[in-house]
Amino acid sequence: METKVSSASQEVLIGDNRPTVLIGERINPSGKKKLSEALKEGNFDVIREEATTQVEAGADILDVNVVTSGVDEVVMLPKVIEAVLDSVKVPLCIDINNPAALKEALKIYPGKPIVNSVSGEEKSLNEVLPLVKEYGTAVIGLALDDDGIPKEAGKRVEVANKIIERAESLGIPREDVIIDSLALSVGSDSNAGMVTLETIRKIRDELGVNQNLGASNISFGLPNRSLLNQTFLAIAIAAGLTCPTVNVAKVRSAILAADLALGRDRYAMRYIKDFRKSTSG
Amino acid sequence: METKVSSASQEVLIGDNRPTVLIGERINPSGKKKLSEALKEGNFDVIREEATTQVEAGADILDVNVVTSGVDEVVMLPKVIEAVLDSVKVPLCIDINNPAALKEALKIYPGKPIVNSVSGEEKSLNEVLPLVKEYGTAVIGLALDDDGIPKEAGKRVEVANKIIERAESLGIPREDVIIDSLALSVGSDSNAGMVTLETIRKIRDELGVNQNLGASNISFGLPNRSLLNQTFLAIAIAAGLTCPTVNVAKVRSAILAADLALGRDRYAMRYIKDFRKSTSG
Repeated sequence: METKVSSASQEVLIGDNRPTVLIGERINPSGKKKLSEALKEGNFDVIREEATTQVEAGADILDVNVVTSGVDEVVMLPKVIEAVLDSVKVPLCIDINNPAALKEALKIYPGKPIVNSVSGEEKSLNEVLPLVKEYGTAVIGLALDDDGIPKEAGKRVEVANKIIERAESLGIPREDVIIDSLALSVGSDSNAGMVTLETIRKIRDELGVNQNLGASNISFGLPNRSLLNQTFLAIAIAAGLTCPTVNVAKVRSAILAADLALGRDRYAMRYIKDFRKSTSG
Repeated sequence: METKVSSASQEVLIGDNRPTVLIGERINPSGKKKLSEALKEGNFDVIREEATTQVEAGADILDVNVVTSGVDEVVMLPKVIEAVLDSVKVPLCIDINNPAALKEALKIYPGKPIVNSVSGEEKSLNEVLPLVKEYGTAVIGLALDDDGIPKEAGKRVEVANKIIERAESLGIPREDVIIDSLALSVGSDSNAGMVTLETIRKIRDELGVNQNLGASNISFGLPNRSLLNQTFLAIAIAAGLTCPTVNVAKVRSAILAADLALGRDRYAMRYIKDFRKSTSG
């Protein structure tokens, strides 16, 4: 199954036999003081710079999140999106759980973005999916519902299926729903990685949709996070993950290695190009 | 299924839900001038040092290969094995395709080694399996036969099955056959990695035996080999690879990350210990 997203001038195709699509995670004030301050001051230079840096590092899509205390999301989200689209051409992933702010963002977005996110919670389904339908976007569906995050893979797949079915009932094409199986730290539960991987495999085999993951949660509380993140990402990509949300500069080379190992890089051209870039700089 | 191998004083268990067992590849003169010279001169210090270094880096088993021009394997193999067992306590993987030299090595080996290797070729089956039976060893079975290396996963599985059945017909327990699905370079054939991974998955699901792989072939002719090797290893371990032959110092941390991601490292103890070791040195 193929998901198409776009900006005014670029189209990105997400699909299981294509190179993995990387969604850059770094325009997010959570835990970033500098970005947080910039948002409060309405200083977009920091954001423009972060956008440019990520695209130069190989991001295919950028996640944009402005949620921090003291910032009015309804006003700020569209402005930040415009600032980002001013600097880079890639499509965006609009990361907000405030429907009013989401609506303002969708009004000004020139193309087909990804809405991040809807969940299986009734409130979320009722608030977010109508906007996804109205503006013809793609959407990330989180495998959790009113009972929280299911512990078993089979139940996460059920939640994913519920989101897809609800979307389809509103006329949203199945291929525009991208499921996030949810990664939790293996530091607190050794089994957490396996549950996520099993969910990803089942969603690929049973539902066939594209899949997102904020994989860095897997290493929360552990040392040497980059190595664990990139190793987990490689295994998850082999299982069916197609568009992870990542720190692009840190994990792109490993993801290119996974794509090469999985037959998605003819003549190893992307892998070799990346190696040359990393050694020439 | 569980394979047990041993030296005089150590037992190593190989199995699908256990931590990945690492077979150190570096006692092999191929492409190593210093080791090659040492073998010709009968100077075992270089070999003892290489053995110690690999075990300190985390090797669970050491592969021992003495094949180089100007060295009489029948005489030298048992001597090198004795030198290695003099320095380290881990079980060995005896890497030789000369049955006379293999027999001399097995005569002096104190425990249950891995014989590396038998293939699906008639000559190999007839020469190697009787020695495996006589000395009660484990054996690596290569998924190739008189027609060469099959291009399709299904055919490699057939060859693997043939080796296992032949072994069983001689009274060798199924769990003592470890299959090598064979890795070829993705630099010359983009599809090569997928064929190997599909073979590994099928062998796990259909035959259930332990699996070895000389994974570094995957990156032959490509730059940044370590990254590709460790990424491929992580994916292959998730698919069913249980005891790869590797350059332990280069890939062990990534393999520990894979084990952690796959729920084989409770409380992340091995991963954290490895991190502390790598930062304290």
